[in-house]
Amino acid sequence: MENFDIHILGCGSALPTTRHNPSSQVVALRGKIYMVDCGEGTQLQMRRSKLNFNRLGHIFLSHLHGDHCFGLLGLISTFGLLGRTTDLHIHAPAEYEPLLQAQLDFFCQRISFKVVFHPVDTTVYACIHEDRTARVYSLPLKHRVPCCGFLFQETPSLPHIRRDMIDFYGIPHHQINNIKNGLDWTDEEGNLIPNARLTVPAAPPRSYAYCSDTLYLPSLTGYLKDVDLLYHEATFDKTFLQRAEETGHSTAGQAALLARECNARRLCIGHFSARYNDENILLEEARQIFPDTILARENLILTISAKKI
Amino acid sequence: MENFDIHILGCGSALPTTRHNPSSQVVALRGKIYMVDCGEGTQLQMRRSKLNFNRLGHIFLSHLHGDHCFGLLGLISTFGLLGRTTDLHIHAPAEYEPLLQAQLDFFCQRISFKVVFHPVDTTVYACIHEDRTARVYSLPLKHRVPCCGFLFQETPSLPHIRRDMIDFYGIPHHQINNIKNGLDWTDEEGNLIPNARLTVPAAPPRSYAYCSDTLYLPSLTGYLKDVDLLYHEATFDKTFLQRAEETGHSTAGQAALLARECNARRLCIGHFSARYNDENILLEEARQIFPDTILARENLILTISAKKI
Repeated sequence: MENFDIHILGCGSALPTTRHNPSSQVVALRGKIYMVDCGEGTQLQMRRSKLNFNRLGHIFLSHLHGDHCFGLLGLISTFGLLGRTTDLHIHAPAEYEPLLQAQLDFFCQRISFKVVFHPVDTTVYACIHEDRTARVYSLPLKHRVPCCGFLFQETPSLPHIRRDMIDFYGIPHHQINNIKNGLDWTDEEGNLIPNARLTVPAAPPRSYAYCSDTLYLPSLTGYLKDVDLLYHEATFDKTFLQRAEETGHSTAGQAALLARECNARRLCIGHFSARYNDENILLEEARQIFPDTILARENLILTISAKKI
Repeated sequence: MENFDIHILGCGSALPTTRHNPSSQVVALRGKIYMVDCGEGTQLQMRRSKLNFNRLGHIFLSHLHGDHCFGLLGLISTFGLLGRTTDLHIHAPAEYEPLLQAQLDFFCQRISFKVVFHPVDTTVYACIHEDRTARVYSLPLKHRVPCCGFLFQETPSLPHIRRDMIDFYGIPHHQINNIKNGLDWTDEEGNLIPNARLTVPAAPPRSYAYCSDTLYLPSLTGYLKDVDLLYHEATFDKTFLQRAEETGHSTAGQAALLARECNARRLCIGHFSARYNDENILLEEARQIFPDTILARENLILTISAKKI
């Protein structure tokens, strides 16, 4: 089973502190990496993580507040200086495109790669990207500006071949790909050997959801059913519920409630308000509702292990 | 004598590393602070420095490469979140204004203070700002894009009153301000006591010059004569002289040569290429020409002491 890792590059909120960087994280899966949000300082955090810049092809921006996107131009400039040649895809709310283009025209005329902009409709759940590694879906969120989360679903793996059965039925090697892809086998006597006898199903595909910044939204439950890992913002503790509602944010308890409702395997909370010098108050609040909760922190790597079949 | 301090917030060059932040520094004088350049991550560096954000009224950008200005929007946004109300003045090449305005319109509609843009003609030596604390001059530099350095000259202090003479001539207290401002005194018998007998001259005004990014420019000598502290870029060592010339940068030796030619009291070199894991090679090269050289580093505070009279 290949690694499915989430690297937290920043999990603070709008006011940067010396404890937390603004929002950014990287989803690493089967040798590819995807970035979600890109606050100021992200490129340095990425360098610290030792992640290979060249493997990053897609950046997804949840919304256009500075703490989620002010690091993008620096990252792109650095890729230019490093001589990158492969396209870089930016998925973000449509209204960002002219401003991004103006900045690229001003600061990045000489970069040797293309920046391809993909507008994201933040109001719908939709598949916005698909490759051989993963599908990425937009998750409509509710914040002060258009905002969406992202659901990463691993592309299903092919089943494993049962060597013993291949040998037993004397199936030639050049047929193995067909069998991996689901074909049955007919032996020399015309007996049909069903595919299920020749293979073991692969582990079910894993999934990861990023929901920040947003009000508590029970309507997400339908999209997030059985998600393996949910990252949900928990800007405030419950005593600031009213402030959370006014500013389009959630409390730790609300994040936990959503995790419970969608039957998540694990919850990671982040986007902490700068008012907390110790986020354990948020962790305790969440764990009372959803015990399998952890606190995000910079340079944390969350590994999504295989599901049991 | 009040402090005249330079806080180095970042002294790396275009490629950020985990050792150096991109360019930014703060000039602190008589309770005011001025910022020069504002690369990505500057606001966090400023927070680390414990400098009071409210004292910053003027930001001077040498040129419009990302490593000198990508931190500006984040800084302005944070000032907005902190409820700043006093104007913030940005001095930068004119072509930045429309892009800055577009970004402010997009990201900072709700800030509670005015951002006032002052175009700087980078091709001339001119006083671009003056207040009760300092005069700031542009220094025409030569880089790949329009670029200027900045010379900070402390506003001359008023002379010190000689208490003994004031008492001796029985000069009333309400006259002291006049005498500080240069008036002579006429006693009851009509004798003129020249001002020079009643005062001791203040220490001569101190000065600080920032020259980055630039080719070695002997023509600066005229503007920088006897400067107390010269910060000069030293992106490369002498073995990369050709690369320095191609990219509009200087070697450590060239920085030292300029310091010697203008009779600087001290030289601080910075804007180090990411290729150096140890900048002592640059330091040694410079010290062979100008011994009173030091290396910039993040969080270094350079204090300009009073000149001997």
